[in-house]
Amino acid sequence: MKGLFITLEGPDGSGKTTQAEALVAYLRKKGLQVVMTREPGGTVISEQIRNILLDKKNQMMDNMTEALLYAASRAQHVAEVIQPALKEGKIVICDRFLDSSIVYQGIGRGLGLEMVQKINEFAVRGCMPDITFLLKLPPRAGLERKYDQGDGDRLENESIYFHEQVYRGYQLLEEQEPERIKGIDARKTPEEIHLEIVRCVENKLKGREKS
Amino acid sequence: MKGLFITLEGPDGSGKTTQAEALVAYLRKKGLQVVMTREPGGTVISEQIRNILLDKKNQMMDNMTEALLYAASRAQHVAEVIQPALKEGKIVICDRFLDSSIVYQGIGRGLGLEMVQKINEFAVRGCMPDITFLLKLPPRAGLERKYDQGDGDRLENESIYFHEQVYRGYQLLEEQEPERIKGIDARKTPEEIHLEIVRCVENKLKGREKS
Repeated sequence: MKGLFITLEGPDGSGKTTQAEALVAYLRKKGLQVVMTREPGGTVISEQIRNILLDKKNQMMDNMTEALLYAASRAQHVAEVIQPALKEGKIVICDRFLDSSIVYQGIGRGLGLEMVQKINEFAVRGCMPDITFLLKLPPRAGLERKYDQGDGDRLENESIYFHEQVYRGYQLLEEQEPERIKGIDARKTPEEIHLEIVRCVENKLKGREKS
Repeated sequence: MKGLFITLEGPDGSGKTTQAEALVAYLRKKGLQVVMTREPGGTVISEQIRNILLDKKNQMMDNMTEALLYAASRAQHVAEVIQPALKEGKIVICDRFLDSSIVYQGIGRGLGLEMVQKINEFAVRGCMPDITFLLKLPPRAGLERKYDQGDGDRLENESIYFHEQVYRGYQLLEEQEPERIKGIDARKTPEEIHLEIVRCVENKLKGREKS
């Protein structure tokens, strides 16, 4: 039986991690084998790449270098974690995946959607998510949520403009791939969102059983 | 005045480094400003990436991860070293550049020429060599040369087949871009090769003065 690959996307503060955890709990209760992961995905090599990306000494890092490093880390994550789990028929749930890079590097850093999209297609070598839940939060609402959690410092340094760009970027991807990317209004309650996600996953699972 | 970007390519043992050094000496004698570099290009970030690539613990590294890391290192080398020097009107001479990746990762690792070519085009963002000297050495001749230098250990682990693949890969690139890539028979004497290189560079310099 082929596995199922689910990713969650959306801006900071949209509730991705909460939803990912709730979905994992739901599926495990049904007795399904689930792997929950996130980038850089806990491989030794991806961690080494992450150290370069986060090293404060690396102020000189070029935007293209950054995009290629994220893609390299993703390639390793796919080869070492995601692909093997899917081959064993497991359900893989990943908190952020290639769409994040496309939006943040492609639009946020101004490299352009198309180029970053191509680089990431190469990186995942056909291992694309079966479903991507996009938690949509208009920029201002996202900021307010994070402030409520007392996590305002980092976000204070980012402009509203940047958040608007990211919002538009995700919107664009959703329009490009409506079959894969399911937009959900993140201002709904966590319970409502969870139900929406579960309904969609159940449909996919039924389709999988038939095939 | 726009700079001039020259790269040297070819298999191990073809004499690239000797020719690069001789060309640098020749151009400096003429009073020209020359930057000699090689990948990873001596930037802090590229060295960090190189450490990941060379770490013997990283046996699990996926071929695609490897290709993307080389490309990331190249992107940084271009942004921090090559591009700025060219903007200052200097001549940049680089011992191996993107063609090496295309041949070694694309053909040697079996990722395919087209994919690795695309990734590297993104990495250099238009900063392509004006001239590339390809020192061509039929596979067996290359091996014999290295053995003469008492450096047989590493090469003993690589098959003749791999060397033939690399030879064919370079050949293919030469056919694709005859304007940029000048093939030179590496079995000629170092002096003969130097003269051939100098003649071609002088022509380019004349063209540059006119424009």
